[in-house]
Amino acid sequence: MLLLAVGSIAFDSIRTPYGETEEILGGSATFFSVTASWFTSVSVVAVVGEDFGEQHFQVFRERSIDTAGVERVPGRTFRWKGEYTGDMNQAHTLETQLNVFENFVPKIPAAYLDTQYLFLGNILPALQLNVRRALPNLRASALDTMNYWIQGMPEDLAKVLATVEILLINEGEARMLSKQHNLKKAAEKIKKLGPRVVVIKRGEHGATLFGPESIFTVPAYLLDEVYDPTGAGDTFAGGFMGHLARTGDLSDANLRRAAVYGSVMGSFAVEEFGVGRLLRLTPGEIESRYREIKNLTHFDA
Amino acid sequence: MLLLAVGSIAFDSIRTPYGETEEILGGSATFFSVTASWFTSVSVVAVVGEDFGEQHFQVFRERSIDTAGVERVPGRTFRWKGEYTGDMNQAHTLETQLNVFENFVPKIPAAYLDTQYLFLGNILPALQLNVRRALPNLRASALDTMNYWIQGMPEDLAKVLATVEILLINEGEARMLSKQHNLKKAAEKIKKLGPRVVVIKRGEHGATLFGPESIFTVPAYLLDEVYDPTGAGDTFAGGFMGHLARTGDLSDANLRRAAVYGSVMGSFAVEEFGVGRLLRLTPGEIESRYREIKNLTHFDA
Repeated sequence: MLLLAVGSIAFDSIRTPYGETEEILGGSATFFSVTASWFTSVSVVAVVGEDFGEQHFQVFRERSIDTAGVERVPGRTFRWKGEYTGDMNQAHTLETQLNVFENFVPKIPAAYLDTQYLFLGNILPALQLNVRRALPNLRASALDTMNYWIQGMPEDLAKVLATVEILLINEGEARMLSKQHNLKKAAEKIKKLGPRVVVIKRGEHGATLFGPESIFTVPAYLLDEVYDPTGAGDTFAGGFMGHLARTGDLSDANLRRAAVYGSVMGSFAVEEFGVGRLLRLTPGEIESRYREIKNLTHFDA
Repeated sequence: MLLLAVGSIAFDSIRTPYGETEEILGGSATFFSVTASWFTSVSVVAVVGEDFGEQHFQVFRERSIDTAGVERVPGRTFRWKGEYTGDMNQAHTLETQLNVFENFVPKIPAAYLDTQYLFLGNILPALQLNVRRALPNLRASALDTMNYWIQGMPEDLAKVLATVEILLINEGEARMLSKQHNLKKAAEKIKKLGPRVVVIKRGEHGATLFGPESIFTVPAYLLDEVYDPTGAGDTFAGGFMGHLARTGDLSDANLRRAAVYGSVMGSFAVEEFGVGRLLRLTPGEIESRYREIKNLTHFDA
């Protein structure tokens, strides 16, 4: 088992200036695993309710994602309703129904205990820590988190941060966590909490990777339209960790390539609602957009 | 005569979270010409009042900037008072005293009529147009403008836009001018108004160059502190046009290099109040930061 994702599986209802959807498949583990499946074998640990049917499992199966760790329990699947207006950089949550997610305790199947690469999607920090501790053979683990845990559970978050190699975090949350406005200083402060690599996601402005050896920025691919930003961060993580797991190379040069793949995959995610575009990709499209980002940033020394 | 700048010379009073200054030398023509002087010979057309003394002219002389086109007239020099708070991306104007700038009519000395490269700093669009029309031998002219003219004088602005090769504009103003939120669409729409090259400045997020052949993004250099963003846009323009004038090369590859020099010079401008840091540069520092931006963006294909 190479790459494991722990996180949410949800039904999302989303309104953007371009349209509206009702209860489509979403959640951090979904966006991450569908994306990473273009790079390597990926397994998911998550929880769903009785309303999560064969047709939903089929989406994962279509991408050869191992769902042995997806527990199906009595009750309804996690639901999220949100809206994007104006500059679409910020989701406005209209409704959250945690449902079966409220009592989620990740259970790692024995077959996954040799996992080398781990993505801890945005769940309760104490649960992230339990998962991290259960996996002794990791080469790299990456963590996502959010404002809610940064403000509400700083001690639990500090514990799990001390155990991971990589933190993927958005700009506003990096500032909140570090209490530093300047992103360079924010990343330096966060590194002292544990991660050797801090990737600050900046939405339409791309991402900045603060690695052990150097700093690297990658722009967002320029799209004609952003239809739905939901899941873009988890999709970035899927491209980033997918490439690291595929290559087994944690060098500075390869961390940079991984960040570019993160940006590439994020750009596909926002072209449609849900994971639709991510399911319909081809390896050629991924490589072509990688080259376009190269062309977008290249200049002669 | 190679590169000519037309714009304002001002005394700025600025408050930022890092400190406060009173009536220091500023204005678009000042930031532009001091910056461009590191690349090529530059001349300035502007107006100052009787309070503009020998010690102020000395700043230009120190950088071998030709001030034969700087008219000194009865009255007081243009004064601007502004403040930056919070994320420092936006100046809050506290006071504007146009003084002699109110009746500024740029006069081009005969010796400048063979000018090949022109920067039209942010002044009344009708005046920009007069200057543009007076110079028949231009290889490239670049225009800056602002929200005030976009909203208040759209017809005059359209006339001058139709005559220039390059527009340098910030993100918010590009959206206002094009009535498009998406920056790619905004640039495409602006290109139909005249300029072959549109450079959208995005402050701490860098800049995007929409050239005749390709799109290029350059990040902002990551600083530990931004002391004062005043003049960063004109400084970017000074590096950009300075490099183009120095090389005489308007190719796609060289427009990219010019944008990197713009970003490099902008990063120096914000390290101190006013033009202090820009006066104290060395060519080695400029080249070193150019290489650092290369390292910040390079990845293997």
